[in-house]
Amino acid sequence: MKDKVPDIKYLFEPRAVAVIGASQDKTKLGYHVVDNIVSGGYKGKIYPINPRGGDICGHRVYARIEDVDDDIDVVSIVVPAKFVFEAVKSCAEKGVKFASIITSGFAEVGNVEEERRIVACARDHGMRIQGPNIFGIYSCVSSLNATFSAGCPEPGGVAIITQSGALGLGMIGKTAIEHLGLSAIVSVGNKSDLDEADLLEYLIPQEETKLIFMYIEGVQDGEKLIRVLSAATKKKPVIVLKSGRSERGAIAAASHTGSLAGSDDVFDAIMRQCGVLRAECVKEGFDWCKFIAASPPPPGDNTVIITNGGGIGVMATDASEKYNVALYDDAATLKEAFTAVTPDFGSTKNPVDITGQAGRAEYNVALDAALNHRDMHGVMALYCETAVFDAENLSSMIMENSRKYREGGKPLVFAVFGGRKSEDCISQCREQNIPVFSDVYEAVSCMGSLYRYYNYKNNISEGEATVELDTRLIETIAHQALQQNRFFLLANEAQAIMKIAGVEVPRSSVARNLDEAVRCSEDIGYPVVMKVVSRDIIHKSDAGGVALNLENKNEVIDAYQAIIQNCKAYNPNAFIEGVEIAEMVKPGTELIIGARRDATFGTIVMVGLGGIYVEVMKDVTFRYFPLDRREVMNMIKEIRSYPLLLGVRGEEKKDIDGAADMIIKLGSIIQNCKTISDIEINPLRVYEGKGVKAVDVRILLSKVERSNQHE
Amino acid sequence: MKDKVPDIKYLFEPRAVAVIGASQDKTKLGYHVVDNIVSGGYKGKIYPINPRGGDICGHRVYARIEDVDDDIDVVSIVVPAKFVFEAVKSCAEKGVKFASIITSGFAEVGNVEEERRIVACARDHGMRIQGPNIFGIYSCVSSLNATFSAGCPEPGGVAIITQSGALGLGMIGKTAIEHLGLSAIVSVGNKSDLDEADLLEYLIPQEETKLIFMYIEGVQDGEKLIRVLSAATKKKPVIVLKSGRSERGAIAAASHTGSLAGSDDVFDAIMRQCGVLRAECVKEGFDWCKFIAASPPPPGDNTVIITNGGGIGVMATDASEKYNVALYDDAATLKEAFTAVTPDFGSTKNPVDITGQAGRAEYNVALDAALNHRDMHGVMALYCETAVFDAENLSSMIMENSRKYREGGKPLVFAVFGGRKSEDCISQCREQNIPVFSDVYEAVSCMGSLYRYYNYKNNISEGEATVELDTRLIETIAHQALQQNRFFLLANEAQAIMKIAGVEVPRSSVARNLDEAVRCSEDIGYPVVMKVVSRDIIHKSDAGGVALNLENKNEVIDAYQAIIQNCKAYNPNAFIEGVEIAEMVKPGTELIIGARRDATFGTIVMVGLGGIYVEVMKDVTFRYFPLDRREVMNMIKEIRSYPLLLGVRGEEKKDIDGAADMIIKLGSIIQNCKTISDIEINPLRVYEGKGVKAVDVRILLSKVERSNQHE
Repeated sequence: MKDKVPDIKYLFEPRAVAVIGASQDKTKLGYHVVDNIVSGGYKGKIYPINPRGGDICGHRVYARIEDVDDDIDVVSIVVPAKFVFEAVKSCAEKGVKFASIITSGFAEVGNVEEERRIVACARDHGMRIQGPNIFGIYSCVSSLNATFSAGCPEPGGVAIITQSGALGLGMIGKTAIEHLGLSAIVSVGNKSDLDEADLLEYLIPQEETKLIFMYIEGVQDGEKLIRVLSAATKKKPVIVLKSGRSERGAIAAASHTGSLAGSDDVFDAIMRQCGVLRAECVKEGFDWCKFIAASPPPPGDNTVIITNGGGIGVMATDASEKYNVALYDDAATLKEAFTAVTPDFGSTKNPVDITGQAGRAEYNVALDAALNHRDMHGVMALYCETAVFDAENLSSMIMENSRKYREGGKPLVFAVFGGRKSEDCISQCREQNIPVFSDVYEAVSCMGSLYRYYNYKNNISEGEATVELDTRLIETIAHQALQQNRFFLLANEAQAIMKIAGVEVPRSSVARNLDEAVRCSEDIGYPVVMKVVSRDIIHKSDAGGVALNLENKNEVIDAYQAIIQNCKAYNPNAFIEGVEIAEMVKPGTELIIGARRDATFGTIVMVGLGGIYVEVMKDVTFRYFPLDRREVMNMIKEIRSYPLLLGVRGEEKKDIDGAADMIIKLGSIIQNCKTISDIEINPLRVYEGKGVKAVDVRILLSKVERSNQHE
Repeated sequence: MKDKVPDIKYLFEPRAVAVIGASQDKTKLGYHVVDNIVSGGYKGKIYPINPRGGDICGHRVYARIEDVDDDIDVVSIVVPAKFVFEAVKSCAEKGVKFASIITSGFAEVGNVEEERRIVACARDHGMRIQGPNIFGIYSCVSSLNATFSAGCPEPGGVAIITQSGALGLGMIGKTAIEHLGLSAIVSVGNKSDLDEADLLEYLIPQEETKLIFMYIEGVQDGEKLIRVLSAATKKKPVIVLKSGRSERGAIAAASHTGSLAGSDDVFDAIMRQCGVLRAECVKEGFDWCKFIAASPPPPGDNTVIITNGGGIGVMATDASEKYNVALYDDAATLKEAFTAVTPDFGSTKNPVDITGQAGRAEYNVALDAALNHRDMHGVMALYCETAVFDAENLSSMIMENSRKYREGGKPLVFAVFGGRKSEDCISQCREQNIPVFSDVYEAVSCMGSLYRYYNYKNNISEGEATVELDTRLIETIAHQALQQNRFFLLANEAQAIMKIAGVEVPRSSVARNLDEAVRCSEDIGYPVVMKVVSRDIIHKSDAGGVALNLENKNEVIDAYQAIIQNCKAYNPNAFIEGVEIAEMVKPGTELIIGARRDATFGTIVMVGLGGIYVEVMKDVTFRYFPLDRREVMNMIKEIRSYPLLLGVRGEEKKDIDGAADMIIKLGSIIQNCKTISDIEINPLRVYEGKGVKAVDVRILLSKVERSNQHE
């Protein structure tokens, strides 16, 4: 394998391209790709390749790529699957930088071996593969449309990376009619070599790309994706649409962390943590693209709704709550700003209702007032078609104000609701790249996504909270279990690891006789609980082998004797090792805290409402690890039951810092101890003031270790 | 006041209409209303009224309504507000049936008195008022467009009732360009007389109306609305859009039921209970209207997705989970049905992926297979624009199959994603009243709303669960408190009412001395808890006035003496009435159960997760009362924590029936005892097997009673 891989830049900005499988037959993809490259106005050199020769779209056809006496950066391959390997081989040997394999019929239909062979061959020569099973690549900066799409994208500032070729083709058409201009659209297909992260490396610094939209179906190297996405969102907004939210294939893992993490919630949490905006459907994603790409960053959160109809104003208020848009609330300032254009039966409160009598002049005055006021940072302007205001005037008013707001550095979104004239106005504005929506919810959703991105960008957490751990000691305990062919730790082993990590667990020890029982109890401190220790007695309660809330020496003596007697009666043959004496743990708010090594995303931490509520309320939240302490606190604040930690009904605040420490500790153990795959504390009791206690701890060992040792 | 009110039919089907304020000036509403009536093709007689005389749109103008020698059913009034009363009076005296007051400037700007005067005058003569502050009325059956809208609606099967005139005007335009045909559109404005419920009485039996869409901002007579909506949904689908979800004006009521009920959740729950589909925004509501009005009722729940692209297929699967569309899952049957049109690299599993190679023929075969299979009840067909299938062919394929499915009695929805050709196809189909969507989420949302309606309609609960109560005895207790100027009951009073209603409460009594304390404890049964009873000691725990978990006579004696001693030390001047001895209530699943008299909707019942989780998890659900027992059980099943009642971690099922009884009992008390406004049990402990216990009960008394007695 060659040491050096080609700069990804040449995939998007090739100086010469070839098409292997170019065809004169207009029903073939091999024709459309050449035709699109030529008619798209590509400025570099074009080499159609086909053993039959001739010419296509005015370009001479070469029989073989070897015949081309030029350096070729990108080759589009459209020959049938069985000929692809040979084509790739000839390209690789010629020193081509990128092969864009449009042909399908590989891993997606189970033909994994052939795909691997192709990639291996390319790698040996330092060539990289896009696809297979793709529609190709469009790159605005070099006017390259090396796809078999029926139309050409409009040039613009949005780059699209899609895993689905079919959907991507649809997107080329859809973005064109919606005047959503593209800087690039690329499909990654089977991702045999290049994946989203590789393409992002080019798109992140590229100036023409203002915003990146990605359609994802599955993630392979999640840790790489996290790194690249986090880097991307520092520079520009990224919108991700991921299908498979309802995927039923997830296998219930051994721990809660595992099973809950299998859900879409983990992906969702990670995207938020990376500052990515996650759209639910294509329409929503494209709406956001249009608006965010065209909007300046907001100078603050205070948003004003200006409307000519009360009904749509109220709906926009509802939508603002849904999409977390902060409505400006200073009544006196609002009154001063808008009173000039608000009749008595209108309202200067936010939503500002300038009433159905408002025409162009009133909208201009109101919009100017908001633009010029330093405490108003963004406007959602609504227009409901009336008999008074004509829609032709409306278009120019919207265009003029959009320009003013863009120049003034404040976001402005318009929603226009009505008939033919309103729709025409929307179309006219969209042709000028001014996103206007017909439903107020769409407009508010866009404003909400804009704020969400910039709120993230302005508050990026850079640090990494970590703890010092004696990982060698922890690994020693884990390895001892593995040597016994055990892939989980016993309670005392798990407790030992907690102690190494400085996590408080209930004090306990095993007494072999009455004297020891009393001494242990005095050491631990009353009240204590007692449980028989015997591998022959599974159901300890049924056997009378448990005693709770023992408050003094006499009660301990009575209980010890009763337990021994009960258990002997229950199972005369049972071997009784002793009686466990443990601290009776004080009640407290119960959390579940977990960390696991995810096959896709690496170390994942979790926190949620614990105890019996875990499965029922599913009030849990996730993050990838490491993360900084502020983000750990955000994570805790995100759970619905967070108010319990703040204290309800006159309780004091609980030890939230202590809970945060636990998350960082468990994350650090998973991060640093490769033998351990899952840890879960449930419940972690969190106390008023200061103090947390890990009542129950489960630790699973890594399956990787297992295969290393036993296969 | 006249005994008889005119039949609402004549508002929608008037034989003669007049316009008071008719004008020749084309900038005036008075012109547009006449012009719309004339150009809309109204078949009845038209009488423009204006003191200046002349003629408008070819109709003679009468100076005064009295001059018209004919019976007039509807008069549109467009004169300025100050002249409206006189106009109404002249109409009323002439025997006009309905006055449709378009003019604004009444209650909506605080001019309540004038509005009341107008209504009173109309009522005296048996005339009814629509509005004021409306755009008028459009009624397809009589070709009447008595509005000042710029355009005319398309005729069709959807009736719209809107509270907002401005939004209604926008809707007239919007429905026309979206080819959403209307049977009627009416605005209710200030609802000074006629409200939504009155209009529904006409629309429910009217054959031309297939579906009703309502835009609501606020509800006055909620009980009437519930009655009429429940009647409506038995006959046809009703879609409601209600704004003000985020209304912040709700004042925190004294009980949880009150405060939580103030939220939008109550309205939402009631709409569901009435079988109403609640849309979030206009776009969603209109999409549902188009699809449901055009679709046959589904013969069952089994839905099949047929797609030519994997990506959109997966997204439709996600959307199906979101919108509760049941995907058919019999792999063998699916394979048999679709194998003929599915290439190897496609999939016959649901979503059925007939791949990008599929053209008209393949779609036809696949759609026929689903239509003809008795276990497949509905289809969502998706099409992603490809190079293979041309969009012109697509339109006729969609139209043909839509007809076949309509005739075959199965719902079919199409989503088409792509560029210009796809959009043209969507437009062509919509012109033929075939709803096709460009985003799969929109299509699936429509299918989901269709199922939701018919699932309701096929399972309407008719009965009413009630209990026998000694209301006289309950009212007696409440009246005693009112006589003491108390609007809440003391704990013992509330417990007395619970006992009358047959609700189990913890046993307790007050001991005045040591002997009584022991006797009480023996009567109640150990363990018991003890609390000092003294109005001078507020913080009983701080004073050492509480003892828990007393297990025998000796412990009771010790505790009694300690409490008396502690309290005397704590406050030597305190008057100690005695010590309350109470049963120590067993732990169990904690619910909150409530009932209250809502100013809008009458008796409302509530159930949810109780204890300290009420405010935090807000896991509560509401219903109006009375309701049948099955609906009570549905209500309990709706809360997220329902699995706790089924038993988690090896517990047995809890007494869900007992909890249901409590809901019915509390509802019945509110329904029958007018003195009581709010009851709340929190927690109600629900036990494994059989048994519930109301640990804490709060009862508030009716404010109506209070005003009657003290004002």
